[in-house]
Amino acid sequence: MLSKIDITFLRSLRETAFRRQHKAFFVEGNKMIEDLLHSELNFREFYATEEWIYSNKALFNLVEVYFTNKEEPVFGKAKVNQENIKQIPSKEMERISAFKTPPGVLAVVEIPRNKSIGEEIKNELVLCLDEIQDPGNVGTIFRIADWFNIRIVICSPGCADAYQPKVVQASMGSIFRLFPITMSLIDFLKENNKINSGEVYGSFVHSENIYTSELKKDGVIIIGNESKGISEELIPYITKKISIPSYSSGNTSPESLNAAVATGIICSEFRRRGQGSGVRDKK
Amino acid sequence: MLSKIDITFLRSLRETAFRRQHKAFFVEGNKMIEDLLHSELNFREFYATEEWIYSNKALFNLVEVYFTNKEEPVFGKAKVNQENIKQIPSKEMERISAFKTPPGVLAVVEIPRNKSIGEEIKNELVLCLDEIQDPGNVGTIFRIADWFNIRIVICSPGCADAYQPKVVQASMGSIFRLFPITMSLIDFLKENNKINSGEVYGSFVHSENIYTSELKKDGVIIIGNESKGISEELIPYITKKISIPSYSSGNTSPESLNAAVATGIICSEFRRRGQGSGVRDKK
Repeated sequence: MLSKIDITFLRSLRETAFRRQHKAFFVEGNKMIEDLLHSELNFREFYATEEWIYSNKALFNLVEVYFTNKEEPVFGKAKVNQENIKQIPSKEMERISAFKTPPGVLAVVEIPRNKSIGEEIKNELVLCLDEIQDPGNVGTIFRIADWFNIRIVICSPGCADAYQPKVVQASMGSIFRLFPITMSLIDFLKENNKINSGEVYGSFVHSENIYTSELKKDGVIIIGNESKGISEELIPYITKKISIPSYSSGNTSPESLNAAVATGIICSEFRRRGQGSGVRDKK
Repeated sequence: MLSKIDITFLRSLRETAFRRQHKAFFVEGNKMIEDLLHSELNFREFYATEEWIYSNKALFNLVEVYFTNKEEPVFGKAKVNQENIKQIPSKEMERISAFKTPPGVLAVVEIPRNKSIGEEIKNELVLCLDEIQDPGNVGTIFRIADWFNIRIVICSPGCADAYQPKVVQASMGSIFRLFPITMSLIDFLKENNKINSGEVYGSFVHSENIYTSELKKDGVIIIGNESKGISEELIPYITKKISIPSYSSGNTSPESLNAAVATGIICSEFRRRGQGSGVRDKK
């Protein structure tokens, strides 16, 4: 049984301010729990219904191993205590879950500290999200970054918060494998300019055709807001404006692509240029 | 003032069965109304609040012109009667709108008849959606098809209905410029084989690297369900299996890309091969 205070605390983690205060967020569902066990993130607490435990014994056992206070930390993680595994009634799960039909399993996870930006951005592709407001788009972009091995994603403070339930869900576990950093993009770009001499690419509707542009293996790619595009104050930092050309031929034509779709096409275009090195699935 | 019957009718258009029965759907918001005026689709009725009419005189005037019974049909459309323009109170708009905060303007539009599949698929790229269930994905894919000038999109009966409010909204007006056809994909593929000798491409997780595959200018591209992929019974029709390679390098890696993002990357890859012909934005 959860106390009223527990329930209030867990529900408060739906709000960005409380997540930041408590440095914690929650995830739900089997796939997410599995991915979490293999990630570098730390569980704080684990909640499951009796039905879930009964139907998912193998996974529950892995979680128990993780939470058991052994000499050696499991999966290289911090040691935790089995007291933090709680079996709760379905009615209580319904109150804390962000789903209408709760999957029956929920973990409270520590938000990793913002890494300080340093040498690790050198020779890498970095994605900067400029006020991407739809949480589905932010989560989908994390999934794209993970797929294309872009480890560093910088989110402007105006983006949907990286750890809100809808973002976490849309990322399909990719959030555990990336380092989303929330900071001012201008501060990042200034720091980047000190470390890197690379390009800063900005995605626009009518600019240089990305298919025929020269694209380097490293650099920063800025993705603009869903309706307003890239913020005015970032434009001076952009060294190359790129566009995905439209082939539309009607009286009216679409004004743009969805922000996550555009990000996918741009990342694909950067990576395909390096064909022959490091492609996992290549035949 | 709307009668109770009117309200029940308008609200019923949120359900696929009623839309099919009445051969009508509704759209909301200024951008959608503008795109609709320039499309080949026919309005049936138009609802707006006093506030909306007051703030959008130019657009309202265009709608009035459209609905006025002139000798010449406006924008090449069927003649209609001004009686079909209705000013309604905000409270009623709230009851019929699919939005929490209604934009104040809503049009009931005729669903165009399913075109019969014939010669128009010859030498074209056709997208087939196999049980794409998320309405946001279906709408986003329509927007992608429009951007890349793929005019024919075939939706299997298990897809989110093309005319449901969330699909229409996510398409950002692209649904007015395409011909989404709902039919059995097997029936379509049989018909296609009679007309075309082209390839049928299927998108899979581990197959031939799309970046280095030979891609023709025409053919059919099948996009599979978000979690199950392409249906077993369609596989015999596929002549070429393609994949977007993953560059991920962690312990665990993402299982797939979002269905709409994958569609965007695939369509981009087909069109970029034809660089130099028909690209609108090329510089």
